[in-house]
Amino acid sequence: MIKVGIVGATGYAGLELLRLLARHPQAEVAALTSRQHAGTRVDSLFPHLRGVCDLSYATPDEAPLSDCDVVFFATPHGAAMAQAPALVQAGVRIIDVSADFRLHDPALYERWYKQPHQCPDLLQEAVYGLPELHRDAIRSARVIGNPGCYPTSVQLAMLPLVEAGVVDASHIIANCASGVSGAGRTVREDLLYCESADNFRAYGVNGHRHSAEIDQELAEAADAPVKVLFVPHLTPLIRGIHSTVYAPIQNDWKGNDDDLQALFNTRYADEPFVDVLPSGSCPDTRSVRGTNLCRLAVHRPGGSDTAVVLAVIDNLVKGAAGQAVQCFNLMFGCDEDLALAAPALCP
Amino acid sequence: MIKVGIVGATGYAGLELLRLLARHPQAEVAALTSRQHAGTRVDSLFPHLRGVCDLSYATPDEAPLSDCDVVFFATPHGAAMAQAPALVQAGVRIIDVSADFRLHDPALYERWYKQPHQCPDLLQEAVYGLPELHRDAIRSARVIGNPGCYPTSVQLAMLPLVEAGVVDASHIIANCASGVSGAGRTVREDLLYCESADNFRAYGVNGHRHSAEIDQELAEAADAPVKVLFVPHLTPLIRGIHSTVYAPIQNDWKGNDDDLQALFNTRYADEPFVDVLPSGSCPDTRSVRGTNLCRLAVHRPGGSDTAVVLAVIDNLVKGAAGQAVQCFNLMFGCDEDLALAAPALCP
Amino acid sequence: MIKVGIVGATGYAGLELLRLLARHPQAEVAALTSRQHAGTRVDSLFPHLRGVCDLSYATPDEAPLSDCDVVFFATPHGAAMAQAPALVQAGVRIIDVSADFRLHDPALYERWYKQPHQCPDLLQEAVYGLPELHRDAIRSARVIGNPGCYPTSVQLAMLPLVEAGVVDASHIIANCASGVSGAGRTVREDLLYCESADNFRAYGVNGHRHSAEIDQELAEAADAPVKVLFVPHLTPLIRGIHSTVYAPIQNDWKGNDDDLQALFNTRYADEPFVDVLPSGSCPDTRSVRGTNLCRLAVHRPGGSDTAVVLAVIDNLVKGAAGQAVQCFNLMFGCDEDLALAAPALCP
Amino acid sequence: MIKVGIVGATGYAGLELLRLLARHPQAEVAALTSRQHAGTRVDSLFPHLRGVCDLSYATPDEAPLSDCDVVFFATPHGAAMAQAPALVQAGVRIIDVSADFRLHDPALYERWYKQPHQCPDLLQEAVYGLPELHRDAIRSARVIGNPGCYPTSVQLAMLPLVEAGVVDASHIIANCASGVSGAGRTVREDLLYCESADNFRAYGVNGHRHSAEIDQELAEAADAPVKVLFVPHLTPLIRGIHSTVYAPIQNDWKGNDDDLQALFNTRYADEPFVDVLPSGSCPDTRSVRGTNLCRLAVHRPGGSDTAVVLAVIDNLVKGAAGQAVQCFNLMFGCDEDLALAAPALCP
Repeated sequence: MIKVGIVGATGYAGLELLRLLARHPQAEVAALTSRQHAGTRVDSLFPHLRGVCDLSYATPDEAPLSDCDVVFFATPHGAAMAQAPALVQAGVRIIDVSADFRLHDPALYERWYKQPHQCPDLLQEAVYGLPELHRDAIRSARVIGNPGCYPTSVQLAMLPLVEAGVVDASHIIANCASGVSGAGRTVREDLLYCESADNFRAYGVNGHRHSAEIDQELAEAADAPVKVLFVPHLTPLIRGIHSTVYAPIQNDWKGNDDDLQALFNTRYADEPFVDVLPSGSCPDTRSVRGTNLCRLAVHRPGGSDTAVVLAVIDNLVKGAAGQAVQCFNLMFGCDEDLALAAPALCP
Repeated sequence: MIKVGIVGATGYAGLELLRLLARHPQAEVAALTSRQHAGTRVDSLFPHLRGVCDLSYATPDEAPLSDCDVVFFATPHGAAMAQAPALVQAGVRIIDVSADFRLHDPALYERWYKQPHQCPDLLQEAVYGLPELHRDAIRSARVIGNPGCYPTSVQLAMLPLVEAGVVDASHIIANCASGVSGAGRTVREDLLYCESADNFRAYGVNGHRHSAEIDQELAEAADAPVKVLFVPHLTPLIRGIHSTVYAPIQNDWKGNDDDLQALFNTRYADEPFVDVLPSGSCPDTRSVRGTNLCRLAVHRPGGSDTAVVLAVIDNLVKGAAGQAVQCFNLMFGCDEDLALAAPALCP
Repeated sequence: MIKVGIVGATGYAGLELLRLLARHPQAEVAALTSRQHAGTRVDSLFPHLRGVCDLSYATPDEAPLSDCDVVFFATPHGAAMAQAPALVQAGVRIIDVSADFRLHDPALYERWYKQPHQCPDLLQEAVYGLPELHRDAIRSARVIGNPGCYPTSVQLAMLPLVEAGVVDASHIIANCASGVSGAGRTVREDLLYCESADNFRAYGVNGHRHSAEIDQELAEAADAPVKVLFVPHLTPLIRGIHSTVYAPIQNDWKGNDDDLQALFNTRYADEPFVDVLPSGSCPDTRSVRGTNLCRLAVHRPGGSDTAVVLAVIDNLVKGAAGQAVQCFNLMFGCDEDLALAAPALCP
Repeated sequence: MIKVGIVGATGYAGLELLRLLARHPQAEVAALTSRQHAGTRVDSLFPHLRGVCDLSYATPDEAPLSDCDVVFFATPHGAAMAQAPALVQAGVRIIDVSADFRLHDPALYERWYKQPHQCPDLLQEAVYGLPELHRDAIRSARVIGNPGCYPTSVQLAMLPLVEAGVVDASHIIANCASGVSGAGRTVREDLLYCESADNFRAYGVNGHRHSAEIDQELAEAADAPVKVLFVPHLTPLIRGIHSTVYAPIQNDWKGNDDDLQALFNTRYADEPFVDVLPSGSCPDTRSVRGTNLCRLAVHRPGGSDTAVVLAVIDNLVKGAAGQAVQCFNLMFGCDEDLALAAPALCP
């Protein structure tokens, strides 16, 4: 059994890791940390885990993290980079679900996260955990920066187009709507039921941390600078992200709708967790609820000069914990879809 | 008292007319038609109207529509154009909440609504009922084509920019999300609670009827051809539309963010139902719930070359019945906000 | 104009008072207090009030509360009893939407609210603000203890039966479900969207503060001891309480279903805000959304020995701010339904 | 592999069977019937099943139902009893998720379902598929009447109390709230999103079909007549039933709260799908979302003479498809929790 530690197992991403790993035949959760709840059984705080997990939280100091084969960080940013160096030193591999190891450039990290990066060396070697882009590097990585939820959907929506040079990557618009769990289990006024239910609004219009990560990876894929205008919205879903991504088709690209569709079909033919829908489809978020899938569809409305890609994921699964488990499977030689194959809960 | 008839008072727009007119001191609802429910009291079908409306439905033939001063059509398209000529002949003014009198060009009507227009003459004289564009014409109109819900929000979002020539109106993207009541009280599988709740999806990506109407009015305002790429989405709200509209700023426009804001402030300074939020704001749909307001905010993310306008309305009020009452007030010399001034129901 | 102060105008009940009083032709809101937000305009915090209220919050010390004719307390319990004596001394009348003046017995108050009552004298003279029970006393009261949300619905459901001695008032079961706004605008983990949406649960099964108030008033109406087993539940509504109240019919009562219905029709014939539905009906919470109405229906399933009364209210209106305005209207000689007559927002 | 047919695999219960059986290592879905959709792939109608099920619907005549080892009926009542005799004759076992084989008495069936039973002989031998009551009989049954959703939760809530004679079983009150999927995928006006969202109401107060089934099984368990006053409510959940069941404790029962708790702990000690929560708990519906669990808690508020049991299930799983798979596992000698062990999807 592969011994697993989870730091920050009281938030939605951490709890989702517990849900997924509970049925993983080769993983054994050996350590759960929470300063606040040290000594408390996880299933007394979270009754939906009764019968699933009988562990108690431990303080970070007491938890046997350095005995683990891998430690997941499901913490706010800042925590992983503080603890990772010692763990890596001890031979523990790291899958950081927070943002500490996503951006290659420490200066960019500091600009967006308002603090200097604490281990630029590890940052240097960290692998961005999007298997559809970096599968081989993930297999051997010591440190994974697990992608953000919005970036996962926007990148998967755009990869076939920017890799093939079909669109002008400097004028992409990503209009995204996220369920409320994307903000985490933070006790914040605007996340109260009565503030979020039956309500829809944009936020972060003038800059959102995830845009740095979107641009970084798409630029690498495009081998050219990329500028994505990213506007996130909050919508009354528990789980789910829907990204509607617009990209101007290059004048010199002469393909038709079938060619557009074929680009996507081919790019994702062997991907276990990307499902390209037939031409003309509109994926709905519930069709991926609880799964690690990204379903997407490409359109070219009215034969216009704009490609419109619709992509849906479950922000807690493919957008967080599920993708982390997918990376875990790659890192430890398990079948890539192990513990990730259950159908969507729908309705 | 101004005598009012409502044709189709069993759908959401019709019921909303009843809600608003119930407190209108100068309007008296004198006729309600429904073939299916003729003879039934409206408040026995719709208990929330107990104490509000004691009328019964009548068949279209028996209802005293031609004795009314004005008849609202809250019907599927096709019904208003069939009945309007005789009523107009009888001196009755028409406010059509359906789509029959919105498009000036009968050919365009036929292309989008799959049937020839039945009274092109009336169509010719009909006034598009957006007071922010056609206030004077509305006052004296015999026939009003009340704007669609999406078009209202998109047009109000773009008018200041296209009128001032600040943006390239041939490359506008309107990414809109609507609550489920936008689809009416239609008994359709995909509108069931279990299909629409906790779910988000796009639809009509390859062409939606409302785009014709958006283009028509913005082109008139711009005095130039306009092309709006319009992508509607369904989101789990009962009421509310949120439009996020993107427009490329012309290279030769040298204004800054304050100038952008000033354009909106000035354009809507005297509008009773358009509320321009302070710079940096993100309006939420619930802030207009139950009201005739459009609240909007203009952004230019990161000093980029794209203006992003966020606009919210209640699709049943400013997007349908409320706007119709606003037109009614103008047509009959009432204060423009009569019966429309109640604050939002929030939360 | 009657000068009004509101203490605690940042919670849901306080905001709802602002919504209702905004259209009240004889009330002028003259003072709003909030320690935390002193100096801030209310509509900058709550954009749905833009155009409705242009006041700023003041500290309790600076606000001209003692110049007001009446002060509403929309605060957590404890605040009203601390400030009421000085205000009453200054000739200000008090409508306390919190729980400080509901229970006649100071010992009972202390038992349930874990602190001694600070002004038992005022408590002695305070009137329980349920107009259906105490209309005349309310007119001349100096201090009103505005009823709780659950108690309003349960009392209105049971009054006709206990007053007439038809049921055994010592074995009433009140099974109630409340929307989340009933818990106020408290930033609490279990009230987050992702915790409350798509979820249903009971709470307070072993004792809820509102039961004391239910028993007190029903006992007075019954002129006999009353014991209500009260089990509240949280349901994913923003607004709304649905009470299903069961009471054993006395063996010696020989009435039939029509007699049962007649009891309710008669009892509430002149009540402007109680709507008795026809026999066989099931009221839904949305039919009272935003209104001050209680709609109810009485059943006797299968001719059994149990009366089942279904009652719905909007917890923020008839369950809080609306009832307070109803009391206000009575206290100041206004029409009882002034500012309270708008139809429900439905859907 | 055990060959499985599903009749009516287009409703929620049928789709849920597909979801659960997709991961069942010993079941092979071999036939899906739908008259309306014969020839259509199931995953083209239900995209969430892409990659899960590649079958197409067949007409009932063409589907190889008689070659199956077992056929599930997920149809409206009436269908199963029409087709069951021929299938049983052919050696096929039947698990009927509809109501055709739940009531032992054909007269009772006719009274509630308004049609004579078509195969009273099979009805006679059919086993009520509640494993917690009839595990052994289920193992060898040819025909299973799978319990209704409400009855499952109410029966599990009451079994320990009525079996032990602790409560007066002639005065039980079951106040239940169900998510909207309980009404099936029926295209009905009152099930539209805009009619069911943000709304709560009772229905069927004067008699609901499920009460016959509740009484039948509890009477058998009590070995005495039982009368449950059952009032169902519709609440804005997709999935989930919450039952609050009240029962008067017999005067001669002298147990205390611990004894009450012990009754439940003991009764369900070996049940894989009944989770008795610690004393004082209130289960929430989301804690069983997507699972076959019933979580319950017993209370005796304020030391009163009434036991209050709170029970939650997922109406589509333990209340329908999951319980059917549990029966299937028993009938075919599989581990009872096979394909049913995934943790709840929460949040």
